[in-house]
Amino acid sequence: MSALINRQVILSSRPEGIPQAEHFRIVETAIPQPQSGQVLIRNHFLAVEPAMRGWVNAVANYSQPVGIGEVMRSFAAGEIIASQDPQLPVGTRVTGMFGWQDYAAVDVSTIDYRVDQADLPLSTSLGVLGINGITAHYGLMRIGEPKSGETVLVSTGAGAVGSCVGQIARIHGCHTVAITGGESKRQLCVDRFQYDSAVDYKREDFVEQLAAACPNGVDIYFDNTSGSISDAVMQHLNVGARVIICGTASIANWNPTPLGPRVERQLLVKRARMQGFVILDHRDHYAAARVDLADWVRRGLIRYEEEVLPSIDHAPDAIAGLYRGENLGRRLIRVVD
Amino acid sequence: MSALINRQVILSSRPEGIPQAEHFRIVETAIPQPQSGQVLIRNHFLAVEPAMRGWVNAVANYSQPVGIGEVMRSFAAGEIIASQDPQLPVGTRVTGMFGWQDYAAVDVSTIDYRVDQADLPLSTSLGVLGINGITAHYGLMRIGEPKSGETVLVSTGAGAVGSCVGQIARIHGCHTVAITGGESKRQLCVDRFQYDSAVDYKREDFVEQLAAACPNGVDIYFDNTSGSISDAVMQHLNVGARVIICGTASIANWNPTPLGPRVERQLLVKRARMQGFVILDHRDHYAAARVDLADWVRRGLIRYEEEVLPSIDHAPDAIAGLYRGENLGRRLIRVVD
Repeated sequence: MSALINRQVILSSRPEGIPQAEHFRIVETAIPQPQSGQVLIRNHFLAVEPAMRGWVNAVANYSQPVGIGEVMRSFAAGEIIASQDPQLPVGTRVTGMFGWQDYAAVDVSTIDYRVDQADLPLSTSLGVLGINGITAHYGLMRIGEPKSGETVLVSTGAGAVGSCVGQIARIHGCHTVAITGGESKRQLCVDRFQYDSAVDYKREDFVEQLAAACPNGVDIYFDNTSGSISDAVMQHLNVGARVIICGTASIANWNPTPLGPRVERQLLVKRARMQGFVILDHRDHYAAARVDLADWVRRGLIRYEEEVLPSIDHAPDAIAGLYRGENLGRRLIRVVD
Repeated sequence: MSALINRQVILSSRPEGIPQAEHFRIVETAIPQPQSGQVLIRNHFLAVEPAMRGWVNAVANYSQPVGIGEVMRSFAAGEIIASQDPQLPVGTRVTGMFGWQDYAAVDVSTIDYRVDQADLPLSTSLGVLGINGITAHYGLMRIGEPKSGETVLVSTGAGAVGSCVGQIARIHGCHTVAITGGESKRQLCVDRFQYDSAVDYKREDFVEQLAAACPNGVDIYFDNTSGSISDAVMQHLNVGARVIICGTASIANWNPTPLGPRVERQLLVKRARMQGFVILDHRDHYAAARVDLADWVRRGLIRYEEEVLPSIDHAPDAIAGLYRGENLGRRLIRVVD
């Protein structure tokens, strides 16, 4: 353990839209002591994800916003270094909402998961075996309900969630198509994430490429973007299609609500369904999803990418960077040597 | 039987948007003879419904468009007057897609339903016990899945489908709110259709009235309109809300697709679902729905209104009239004395 103090990333002002580096500052505090029923965790990895935009916005959202002056909320993975709970001895590896900081003294109830895949890197517990993989698993399997032979289309197909969705769909016998930005990510989708095809939304002929990649239409659209990408997809929905709303990464600001083509007629004519979900509602699904995901990772059926930022100094700009599309794979911050 | 000839309403040209009187003409033909496996039906009532707009539009829709020169497709109720099928003797009352005409020689498979509620008027087999009631029953019960205490909001709340939705929701212990146009329909919703409250979308203070009528938010929105009415509703969705897309009556033309506020963020944040359906997909639900509906009508738990146009001469303008909002209750055309 290199740090003798606790470095924390604090929300210093309220962003409108996407949080930028200027909305955070890093402070140094004393390492807290665990109280009765608490454990002290040394974080190893902090997570960075698109949903953090929602966590810091003032408007009513699916969780209480992070307060000004509070440690930024985040998933993290670390090791218990002091414990007031005999069930959780020192040395136990855990994940949970431990925040963007080196150390966290938390109630035991804050712990999501006691990491038990000792053969897999701890970082996977925040990615393919963590919230990303579980989000993909729940959204695709429980909302999408894929059937063999169906076409599954994924926006941000190279992302930490999207790449998992595509591969889970492939495992279930679906024809899988990624939408992604840029030729290198497009290649990554096909070569590494095993999509049947991938389409670059930045190309001028995106609409034509999309149609060509989905010759039998779209049965499931796993939507991480909203915006003009999704508008193009809606034209290709098959009868009985399911549109899973997991994120809205292409829209920088929802206040006021931006305009787009109305979806009601298409949903009616195609007897289709659009449904949003927030994985934090579905903790009862986590354990079963992790069993599947770990099995698929071990068998090479799911491949994943991680991008590890080397210190907490990278945290303030890390969310904005996601929205700039600069990352490749699950973005994490390593805070231990 | 007054007619010795068969009067038929023919689609004479292809409308864009809502079909008007000019798109139809009435012709007189010989009464057909039933072939082997067919029956000859004397229609008593012809149905008029918003979905007919979709049936005559050229764009890909949920059924093949009616051809130019063909009899207008419609539900009808009548009596078998000649039969080549011993299971369906002369005198049997039936409903089905018999078209806008006095007489129809149809394959037995065209018959939806052999009317067995002898104590209830034949016209109900096209309305509250027919496609309207069944649409309300399927949409609310199978897609909406109402729970006691939830708020159910219905656009075109005084309509043939909407009034049934509100009353079925009430039977299931829901707080029911209608959206309708004009004070007389608003009163009808409360006084006759037993809604807890009703809101007039034509009033300047509609948005405020809507909020006041749904103090606990909206759990189920049964949407027959789309457009600005639905935009106002979306702001009030509760977590886990269900939006049932049954019709889009407020939008005259979907080509090109009109713009509206994007729904993705609200669906995500509220973990909500929007789903379209077409009742013709769900014939396996009809019989069970009719049993419930007939029971509720007999017990006075569902009340209904019918508006009966007195002759087939009213057919050509009848769909356009629906979209002008001039009808009160299920619109039917009587073609028998």
